Amino acid sequence: MCELMGMACAMPTDARFYFAGLAARGGATDCHIDGWGIAFLDRKSCRVFIDDQPSSMSSLAQHIAREPIRSRNTIAHVRKATVGKACIENCHPFVRQLWGRNWAFAHQGSVHGYTKDLDELFRPVGTTDSEFAFCSLLQDLHKAFGNREPACEEIFECVAQSIGSITEYGSFNFLLSNGELMFAHCSTHLQYSTRRWPFAQSRLVDIALTQDPDDSLSRNNVISVFSTRPLTDTEVWTPMSPGDLHVFEAGRIAASTHIPVPAHIAERARRQRTPRPHFT
Amino acid sequence: MCELMGMACAMPTDARFYFAGLAARGGATDCHIDGWGIAFLDRKSCRVFIDDQPSSMSSLAQHIAREPIRSRNTIAHVRKATVGKACIENCHPFVRQLWGRNWAFAHQGSVHGYTKDLDELFRPVGTTDSEFAFCSLLQDLHKAFGNREPACEEIFECVAQSIGSITEYGSFNFLLSNGELMFAHCSTHLQYSTRRWPFAQSRLVDIALTQDPDDSLSRNNVISVFSTRPLTDTEVWTPMSPGDLHVFEAGRIAASTHIPVPAHIAERARRQRTPRPHFT
Repeated sequence: MCELMGMACAMPTDARFYFAGLAARGGATDCHIDGWGIAFLDRKSCRVFIDDQPSSMSSLAQHIAREPIRSRNTIAHVRKATVGKACIENCHPFVRQLWGRNWAFAHQGSVHGYTKDLDELFRPVGTTDSEFAFCSLLQDLHKAFGNREPACEEIFECVAQSIGSITEYGSFNFLLSNGELMFAHCSTHLQYSTRRWPFAQSRLVDIALTQDPDDSLSRNNVISVFSTRPLTDTEVWTPMSPGDLHVFEAGRIAASTHIPVPAHIAERARRQRTPRPHFT
Repeated sequence: MCELMGMACAMPTDARFYFAGLAARGGATDCHIDGWGIAFLDRKSCRVFIDDQPSSMSSLAQHIAREPIRSRNTIAHVRKATVGKACIENCHPFVRQLWGRNWAFAHQGSVHGYTKDLDELFRPVGTTDSEFAFCSLLQDLHKAFGNREPACEEIFECVAQSIGSITEYGSFNFLLSNGELMFAHCSTHLQYSTRRWPFAQSRLVDIALTQDPDDSLSRNNVISVFSTRPLTDTEVWTPMSPGDLHVFEAGRIAASTHIPVPAHIAERARRQRTPRPHFT
């Protein structure tokens, strides 16, 4: 499987602290060694860094963990290959363009066996079930609205509808952002923690690192952090229920819905209440 | 204006040496300080690094100049903004997907005033004339072949046809790659140098750096390097004629054609036989 990390913020915010915690899970504190990636989306701006090396040993990951890149929306992923070999084209997040925006997507779980006719514009480059599902979501959005860029509510409804046809194939926990909105879907495991002013010191669980509030954590900022498993032991993490879909705008939940997951997926979520770390 | 650098190779090859020369032109030996980018394309694999800082001062550029990333096709760019402000979304190379492949594009020059109706799938994210022209080329390819991925010759003909409608708006020197092919078009200035075994020592003109042949420069490798102005003084650089379009496959020219440029563009190319460095 894999692990997800994300941040949706009211103001451009440095994600190094949480990324350092996630990156440790790529070979140091857990077994997600088949590549990693991080996408920084801030309105139209989008930068993606991917690597097929384990994040705990990647010099690029070390560079990113030193660089204060600030963005409103961040999606990161460490990969343990299930469908598709370990290579650059199978690293998350995947990025594509629609309506003059960048859309980034990362997935935790597997939706093995899900198929659909995808147009030449939505054909995956790599061989993962994840990129296939992302292309399917984007194609549904495109087919539903064509030339007209839809409003947040319309995108939300369309994404919710598309998810229904995919979740029956397996666990489909994902983060999706277009630079303004952050969609978080849980079919088995996904948690979030929303931080507001006054920000307190934060401490990672994977490595000995704390974060003190600095200038970027101003009174006007709201920071929702997402993770497959809690990254810190200093904040309250809210486990999403299997079937929950939230969309965050400026760090806050703008809309929520529940898409029932099939019984066997709900049972899987119950059995593995929280995925266990391998190396502890 | 801007400057281009590219490499098309028979075998995955480290581009650090030439990138170091180009990166110096982003603020140290020339004035292209409005961002930079580099895309490494190797068949389906694609990694892109962009930054809105001057390449000569960018810590990411320094990281890339240390990392031995090997690819068959590399496109790099240092930007001096003409159309569109200095920001991440206006940094080249631009990358989009078609037929399950990544396509990367970087442009030197300006095609101010070129307009066209672009579909929602080919709408630019940033505000440069360059991304607009790239989207226009991809839309033409898509309209010409639809669901069927065309062969090299067909792509070449279609690209050549599309160029004709753009070059009348200004200077349209570009590099375009889909991971297998590298298209190089000159409307005013673009040069290339093809290196074969036995490889000799190479020396940059911008900084005191030489490259000795190493293991990656094997008997089977062929390396064509592209640049707006020669990056080395140890190789023979061939200036392309205004209107020339070459496509390189595995480092060698696979097809060539000539698309006549309007008289005023040809005149501009003659006046500025080679763009002059600003800081020398």
